Amino acid sequence: MQIAITRSSICAHAAHAAVEAAVAYGGAIDKAVVAAVVDSSGDLVALLRADGAFKPSIGIAQDKAYTAAVFGAPTEALSQALSANATLHQGIALRPGVVLFAGGIPIVVDGAIIGAIGVSGGSEDEDRDCARAGLAALGL
Amino acid sequence: MQIAITRSSICAHAAHAAVEAAVAYGGAIDKAVVAAVVDSSGDLVALLRADGAFKPSIGIAQDKAYTAAVFGAPTEALSQALSANATLHQGIALRPGVVLFAGGIPIVVDGAIIGAIGVSGGSEDEDRDCARAGLAALGL
Amino acid sequence: MQIAITRSSICAHAAHAAVEAAVAYGGAIDKAVVAAVVDSSGDLVALLRADGAFKPSIGIAQDKAYTAAVFGAPTEALSQALSANATLHQGIALRPGVVLFAGGIPIVVDGAIIGAIGVSGGSEDEDRDCARAGLAALGL
Amino acid sequence: MQIAITRSSICAHAAHAAVEAAVAYGGAIDKAVVAAVVDSSGDLVALLRADGAFKPSIGIAQDKAYTAAVFGAPTEALSQALSANATLHQGIALRPGVVLFAGGIPIVVDGAIIGAIGVSGGSEDEDRDCARAGLAALGL
Repeated sequence: MQIAITRSSICAHAAHAAVEAAVAYGGAIDKAVVAAVVDSSGDLVALLRADGAFKPSIGIAQDKAYTAAVFGAPTEALSQALSANATLHQGIALRPGVVLFAGGIPIVVDGAIIGAIGVSGGSEDEDRDCARAGLAALGL
Repeated sequence: MQIAITRSSICAHAAHAAVEAAVAYGGAIDKAVVAAVVDSSGDLVALLRADGAFKPSIGIAQDKAYTAAVFGAPTEALSQALSANATLHQGIALRPGVVLFAGGIPIVVDGAIIGAIGVSGGSEDEDRDCARAGLAALGL
Repeated sequence: MQIAITRSSICAHAAHAAVEAAVAYGGAIDKAVVAAVVDSSGDLVALLRADGAFKPSIGIAQDKAYTAAVFGAPTEALSQALSANATLHQGIALRPGVVLFAGGIPIVVDGAIIGAIGVSGGSEDEDRDCARAGLAALGL
Repeated sequence: MQIAITRSSICAHAAHAAVEAAVAYGGAIDKAVVAAVVDSSGDLVALLRADGAFKPSIGIAQDKAYTAAVFGAPTEALSQALSANATLHQGIALRPGVVLFAGGIPIVVDGAIIGAIGVSGGSEDEDRDCARAGLAALGL
């Protein structure tokens, strides 16, 4: 009988580099952002808040990363997938830790979700670009 | 390596004067309101509840002040800025401590946000007018 | 059939004066404190935080005032009254909003509890002295 | 009337370096720890979780940093200062975000508390040593 399954998760070193790159990208476009990386369980691995970033972004960045990791989809793609059913969309939006606007992106290696990055502090497009900069620092 | 950044925050004396003036303005227009002033981190510095003010206004006034301080914008201006995107607007509205209707105004000195005042108990226009009376007491 | 009872509660003007006096007394003994006044239901009426007061004191001052108002006794007298029974003492200490160390004092007029004042930021003795200074400003 | 006071807070760059150094020190003594740095208001600036660190350490590290920042003392020194009074000690221990065992240390520059570092995952001595390694990376 098989007893265990194996899961891959992002390591601390990579998460540290990713939040640094995401915050640096924000600085380059003059946006003070918070970047957070969670593992495949949605638990926090690394976080960095730029000087002057909105205080609520500390929580929003973590929740975007959590949402992307545990549903395995970018936050706005999840929102889009739920959009045909307003009750479902709202019901998921109200779950603890769920954020349905852009800025959370899964981190995928060899087809497996190993975590996610979430960014908050700019517009949805800016947050997504910062998150992608974080992934780019990992060669993804 | 640079270690620290500097931030200004409203002092107790000014906050005490502002909540007094905001509540007095409410009295002059026959509205029992709660006024709260928070520092630049969104933490409470002073609060005053007029006799007969709605009990939930104790929390709403604080949340309006918090929202205006941490996002650096009047609460209704923040709501307006998010209004083009229903998912984003609802997502921010659901964050802890966030209020998106009128009555929260940042306190700005020399271009820096040093805190905010929030008022609750009247209509949105009345609350905003009370908050402005609080700022006027500081010469702002 | 009697339908209603009447209760007296501290008014906004008095509460504002009391927190100002309590914080001023703290300043005179070089302690940055938070002072809070609640009504006879334990709901916040006025609060003032001295520049530099510990952030957790914002909540502790309110909880001391709440505890003194709703149990009708100074916080340390309540603790003393419960001290013979450790399970009871701990059980009350764990209730939401309850604080059992010194610094919360009921406000009593003509034998009726009309509210309470709570102070936090110094030692127990200093907090109690600040609270008494708040009462003294009301001629109590 | 004076309106504002000025406060210094740790910047993102320094916080990022400190959590990296604290986690690296943990690795050198074979302990997987979480390190968190908060600003002078107790709000999170940077966090890093070593591979394999206990999951609750994510929260404990943040709470240690919060406690040290908002009370302006190492967590175990605060515990020691409260130890003569069991009711007070327990009362403070129960406040939200407060941790009273070793591993949280204020970050002080020119006599001002600009934030704090908290580490969790090892013994109290190991956590404190990791936190000190984080400070050492800032030349403190």
